[in-house]
Amino acid sequence: MEMKKTYGLVEAGGTKFVCAVASSPEDLREEVRFPTTEPAETLGRVVEYFQAAQKKWGRLEGLGIGCFGPVDLDKNSPTWGFVTATPKAGWADTNVAGFLSHSLELPVVFDTDVNGAALGEHLWGAGAGLDNLVYLTVGTGIGGGVLSGGRLVHGLVHPELGHFLLSKDPQDTFTGSCPYHGSCAEGLASGPSLEKRWGKKAQDLPPEHPAWDLEAAYLAQALLAFMTCFSPQKIILGGGVMEQLQLFPKIHKEVLRLNNGYIRSPSLTPQGIVNYIVPPSLGNRAGILGALALTST
Amino acid sequence: MEMKKTYGLVEAGGTKFVCAVASSPEDLREEVRFPTTEPAETLGRVVEYFQAAQKKWGRLEGLGIGCFGPVDLDKNSPTWGFVTATPKAGWADTNVAGFLSHSLELPVVFDTDVNGAALGEHLWGAGAGLDNLVYLTVGTGIGGGVLSGGRLVHGLVHPELGHFLLSKDPQDTFTGSCPYHGSCAEGLASGPSLEKRWGKKAQDLPPEHPAWDLEAAYLAQALLAFMTCFSPQKIILGGGVMEQLQLFPKIHKEVLRLNNGYIRSPSLTPQGIVNYIVPPSLGNRAGILGALALTST
Repeated sequence: MEMKKTYGLVEAGGTKFVCAVASSPEDLREEVRFPTTEPAETLGRVVEYFQAAQKKWGRLEGLGIGCFGPVDLDKNSPTWGFVTATPKAGWADTNVAGFLSHSLELPVVFDTDVNGAALGEHLWGAGAGLDNLVYLTVGTGIGGGVLSGGRLVHGLVHPELGHFLLSKDPQDTFTGSCPYHGSCAEGLASGPSLEKRWGKKAQDLPPEHPAWDLEAAYLAQALLAFMTCFSPQKIILGGGVMEQLQLFPKIHKEVLRLNNGYIRSPSLTPQGIVNYIVPPSLGNRAGILGALALTST
Repeated sequence: MEMKKTYGLVEAGGTKFVCAVASSPEDLREEVRFPTTEPAETLGRVVEYFQAAQKKWGRLEGLGIGCFGPVDLDKNSPTWGFVTATPKAGWADTNVAGFLSHSLELPVVFDTDVNGAALGEHLWGAGAGLDNLVYLTVGTGIGGGVLSGGRLVHGLVHPELGHFLLSKDPQDTFTGSCPYHGSCAEGLASGPSLEKRWGKKAQDLPPEHPAWDLEAAYLAQALLAFMTCFSPQKIILGGGVMEQLQLFPKIHKEVLRLNNGYIRSPSLTPQGIVNYIVPPSLGNRAGILGALALTST
């Protein structure tokens, strides 16, 4: 019998960091969470946590890190493992993977948080058995991970689904919250965008508020584009904003309307779409299990 | 020494069919071309050609078919190998692969023409050595093939890059030529769209005509979206419209403007983009070599 290897896991988010130790999804040990402050302090807390964890649990095999982006994933690049052009204050050009690997003397698997989540849902969640998935998180930011042919999509850099440019609703006078693009998905449909446009936090807007129709229209527009690109077998929508479950039927309806019968599939019918565009099934463990999933790549 | 196997090749386009016999790119034998008329006549000519070819060259190993879409690529589907919801008159729900395989008693590899072209450029052309490519053809229609991690992207169906929905230029009063979508790339930027909007065939519009600025803006919008999705290492633009080479510098400039420094890469600089968004290097053999490339999958 093969002994399961034990890994250190880091869900490195723009709002909070989560660290844990695990050998399998059933074995998540002493998870800790702390807010994402400036890089030296935040990464210092990660190092302290794993130093203490290794005293308790023994030497780890390595670290799995799912990180907010954009990140450099080119192994031949001098800035591999860095967070690069993020609008997050203080974090642009921060060496995350190299710093943690060096400080802890551990090998590291490093990818985007959303690629991790996509792989986690493929291994243990809503996408089990499916080799072609899009995972989109809609929260403080918008980001996506993609599995195609059973493998995470990488390339020149990595997918940047949150910065997909939307066709703006002519009635929408909000100028967008992304410093790079006036009308990308993140700029128009993230949690902070909702709050700035409507003057209330997303969770304080009632389900019948017109905010949700506009939000669903913007997300449906992005999802149809991802469907024309990746032809996924399932689309999983996570993140804080998607906890507003009234969004799902609105998105379903709008995706069918925009597709207008062109892409034909049993999944693109009023019955089928309910199981095609779905919430994550790993819930608030998606991020940390994503980091665990990365250690299997 | 291994004997090279000889295949029948079919480039099944919406305007013309090309058939050939080859064992390698250097060995394209007696290529024939004929217009795409109604399915029974057109496919009948394909069968006749390969019956004659086999008398001359001996039994073929099989057929490689790169076909205009949309097509059904699900091997478990009763309509595998069919052209499905095409707007091309008479061709909706046509059994292409099954009919040719049955009539000629040959095994068939069947994929979209653009997936074939993407694979051909990866094996022998502008994308040699690169595992992450987008090939887009802009002609009678617009379609795209994608290689990710060295493999063709399939999924629920296949990519439908031509039906990516664009944000319409407010000055553009043309209502689009796609029967499914008012403002998809094919509806606004294909050859027939150019002709309908400006009242002249694309090749008769002079290089300084404002048509080309609008065309470049629409294509750049689509390409930036494909970059946020696939993060390709190279984008290859083929098809009749792209023979207007004045489009390339306009597209380069507009992609950089839209990206606004967000996706960072040496390829996304004024110097780098010249070798990032490029014409195909297989030229008018791209389609038939695409069919040959498919036989290697």
